[in-house]
Amino acid sequence: MAEFTVDTSAPVEGNAPLPAGLIEAFWRYERALMADDVPALDALFVDDPSTLRGDGSGLLVGHERIAAFRRGRGGAPKRRILEVHAQVIDDDDALLVAVLGPLAGGRGQQTQLWRRSDENGWQVSAAHVSAPAPAIDPRIWRIVGTPLVGSTETGPLDGETVAVKDLFSIAGHRVGAGVPRYLARATPGRVTAPAVSALLGAGATVRGIARTDEFAYSIAGVNPHYGTPPNAAVPGAIPGGSSSGPASAVASGQASIGLATDTAGSIRVPASYQGLWGLRTTHGAISADGLLPLAPSFDTVGWLTRSGELLARITRLLLPSPVGLPARVAIAPGVLDTLEPDIAGTFRAGIDTLVAEGLIPKPSEVELPDAAAALATFRTVQAAEAWRAHGAWITENPGAVSGAVAERFRIAQAVTAEQESEAREQLGRLRGELREILDDRVLLVPAAASTAPQTTASPDEIDAVRTATLQITCFAGIAGAPSVSAPLLSTSAGPLGLALVGPPGSDTALVDFATRLTPLAR
Amino acid sequence: MAEFTVDTSAPVEGNAPLPAGLIEAFWRYERALMADDVPALDALFVDDPSTLRGDGSGLLVGHERIAAFRRGRGGAPKRRILEVHAQVIDDDDALLVAVLGPLAGGRGQQTQLWRRSDENGWQVSAAHVSAPAPAIDPRIWRIVGTPLVGSTETGPLDGETVAVKDLFSIAGHRVGAGVPRYLARATPGRVTAPAVSALLGAGATVRGIARTDEFAYSIAGVNPHYGTPPNAAVPGAIPGGSSSGPASAVASGQASIGLATDTAGSIRVPASYQGLWGLRTTHGAISADGLLPLAPSFDTVGWLTRSGELLARITRLLLPSPVGLPARVAIAPGVLDTLEPDIAGTFRAGIDTLVAEGLIPKPSEVELPDAAAALATFRTVQAAEAWRAHGAWITENPGAVSGAVAERFRIAQAVTAEQESEAREQLGRLRGELREILDDRVLLVPAAASTAPQTTASPDEIDAVRTATLQITCFAGIAGAPSVSAPLLSTSAGPLGLALVGPPGSDTALVDFATRLTPLAR
Repeated sequence: MAEFTVDTSAPVEGNAPLPAGLIEAFWRYERALMADDVPALDALFVDDPSTLRGDGSGLLVGHERIAAFRRGRGGAPKRRILEVHAQVIDDDDALLVAVLGPLAGGRGQQTQLWRRSDENGWQVSAAHVSAPAPAIDPRIWRIVGTPLVGSTETGPLDGETVAVKDLFSIAGHRVGAGVPRYLARATPGRVTAPAVSALLGAGATVRGIARTDEFAYSIAGVNPHYGTPPNAAVPGAIPGGSSSGPASAVASGQASIGLATDTAGSIRVPASYQGLWGLRTTHGAISADGLLPLAPSFDTVGWLTRSGELLARITRLLLPSPVGLPARVAIAPGVLDTLEPDIAGTFRAGIDTLVAEGLIPKPSEVELPDAAAALATFRTVQAAEAWRAHGAWITENPGAVSGAVAERFRIAQAVTAEQESEAREQLGRLRGELREILDDRVLLVPAAASTAPQTTASPDEIDAVRTATLQITCFAGIAGAPSVSAPLLSTSAGPLGLALVGPPGSDTALVDFATRLTPLAR
Repeated sequence: MAEFTVDTSAPVEGNAPLPAGLIEAFWRYERALMADDVPALDALFVDDPSTLRGDGSGLLVGHERIAAFRRGRGGAPKRRILEVHAQVIDDDDALLVAVLGPLAGGRGQQTQLWRRSDENGWQVSAAHVSAPAPAIDPRIWRIVGTPLVGSTETGPLDGETVAVKDLFSIAGHRVGAGVPRYLARATPGRVTAPAVSALLGAGATVRGIARTDEFAYSIAGVNPHYGTPPNAAVPGAIPGGSSSGPASAVASGQASIGLATDTAGSIRVPASYQGLWGLRTTHGAISADGLLPLAPSFDTVGWLTRSGELLARITRLLLPSPVGLPARVAIAPGVLDTLEPDIAGTFRAGIDTLVAEGLIPKPSEVELPDAAAALATFRTVQAAEAWRAHGAWITENPGAVSGAVAERFRIAQAVTAEQESEAREQLGRLRGELREILDDRVLLVPAAASTAPQTTASPDEIDAVRTATLQITCFAGIAGAPSVSAPLLSTSAGPLGLALVGPPGSDTALVDFATRLTPLAR
């Protein structure tokens, strides 16, 4: 590819003549940016922890973090500088605002605060860049419309827009399941899944079809085919999955309701990672017709929202169950002891606040079944069912799914009938134990074992976090119980969900109870 | 609605303690913004022609223009301030960068340069705001996908993305024609229009279905149902139409090819207004099958692109016509005399430069038929055909189209058979005259009579510009001749297309010739 030549003919205007050397530094920066000369760019930013650089993905604070971002991104899109406007403060300080003409079309803007020092010459201490919006964010969506599917009635969800996880059938549209080859071989659906129709019948519209981890078989939210959806709450972090697209769509304001599924945590984990409300419903309470299965014994339908009020409205409407909640609440010290101290501490402090404010009674302590053994049981049954659902397709389409998901299917294929049958027996026992516990107390746990890891975390780190999280989330799956993740906690690294698990059928009461805890968030 | 209370609890960090009074001014601004207190906002911006305010729609320069923007917008979206970061310069100057949490979701950023004076206290001299990207821009698109329709072959258009004007049939999708009620009653198409298939067969994909003026019966680009697509080249200006969506999609970088139609200027005008390449093809050269008609005697298919090279590639591929160009070029002083002096002057200066650079021969002068009479003839036949195409639907759906377009259909309905027949006779004569002229010279004219008017222009102003433009563009329509609008001219108010009109069938030669004139643009 030919060297890109920076055109320095843009007109420069401002409130005063530019200080000496400034425009030369501006063009030096532009040349370094276009050449992706990272050392030169680093040298042109003030080496200080207060230095700022922000764009549509978030604000980076500190020279070190900005330099790391630059090293990772592989260059900036090519552009021309169309106009430069200056606000000169004094001989050593000025703001330069540039109108950008990206070669890929549209207009952008760059605002830089420059300061001169005798040691370092002109350097940037703050930068703010705007790039043109894309037609669609392919990391979040497969297809979007205005709307994609209209409501069929007016109702209590009038004006709400739904991001449908790419597992639900919609008449006239294909199901892609996060796997390009699966999408390519799919035919448009003839019927719309009842979980979708129910929202349309209450006044909501479908904004679009949103991404999922491959066959929903992950809780990370990473998709190598379409790009990892951005975490709208924590710049640079993974979104959580497998309902990654609906979660990112809702967190970023591109939809108000995520229609999703939760087998092993696929709603609760992205809710926790992105500061959303998320409900995994009672197993079987919402029809799974027209839903591509992963593991039918655990698959549930649910919703992600930014507000507890909206989640409560949906739940009351679609699950007007009469089952109430037990009066007692409980925490599980055995679960908390396995967690990183800041997560356990944040959780305990949150519980203490809720008790102190009189929002929950003082929780009792409950011992749950051994988490590692429970997860092993859960995983064996999940794997056997996942292979039953997708094994033939996976076998016929080698290489169609990638990395960690392919590895999971390889393990699933190896589960013997005997192993499955043994796990099912164990599962029945565990379910009985858990339902007994939930019969007279609401269980409070962290929705995930960590805040959202950065996308740069190693596969090993992500896997360790995954296992720790599944050791919490699997209990609701085993019990077939509803669990809401409420965005009530946070650490310095990001939001953390407070998960409430109630007895089967208590979905509405559980969400109503959770929404009354919101003062904690402030 | 309850008063919105500004929460001032955000953490404030920076390189030094804040100067006295700054944070109070920051919160005063925030309260004024949330209350849409325009006088207070105006008072908090430095009253100077160099003051800056930019966002995704473009950069506004000068206090007056910023104030006018504020008066017109009807308030900013409600938001919380999540973090404030300061770069303190001295006691009277500081940059404040705020991370924004819009109530509608996502994250935004605001950068403000503050300065203190004894007369005015703390004021902003430059501001840069980023809002979260929407899932889809409903002004530009009806539906988008990744892709919406895949290519059927690899070919010379591999990697190109097409914005299809909402008039072309695509299998599985409806045609909306810019009219919500028409869309609501449409059924999904069973076949894909050949104009679309031809691009898919050459490697391009369909990015989405883009907006049009109602039934394509306008050249303004204003659509009251879906919002007026933004002009990507001139902040605040109308996009030009009726191929407004494809043009805005291409100009903003959201697609690389606009597949559009031109009856009376619907490709050339938005190309001129937004600095794009646009080709109206020879009448009948590209199949109009599967295209919702406006006036079949004039309807043509064509393309909009950012680069001349791409337009030439498409044209060579899909219209490999052997018809060459005459060696001579001509200008029409009669046309130029009717134009505003800056437009005529810009055009003449451009021609002089092309001659001086040896890119075109010295143009002869040609007298075209009387423009007002030609346009009247054109309009009568267009109206009769438009009523034939849509009159029954318009009659059955009162109120479905709005304003100027409804008025045009009312006039169309009144055209008598005698008027139409007389106009058709006249049209035949005019076509003969024009083809004789084009037989031995390429006609050079401005692609429009003005640069893009601001959206705030009165309907009368827009109508006056419309008529002046149609008096230029109608000649290619009458002649059935190809015309390319090349983004080679500009005034201080924005880009202006240089239109070349060639003999029927000369499309490829005409585009090739136009692309050789590009040095003019620099």
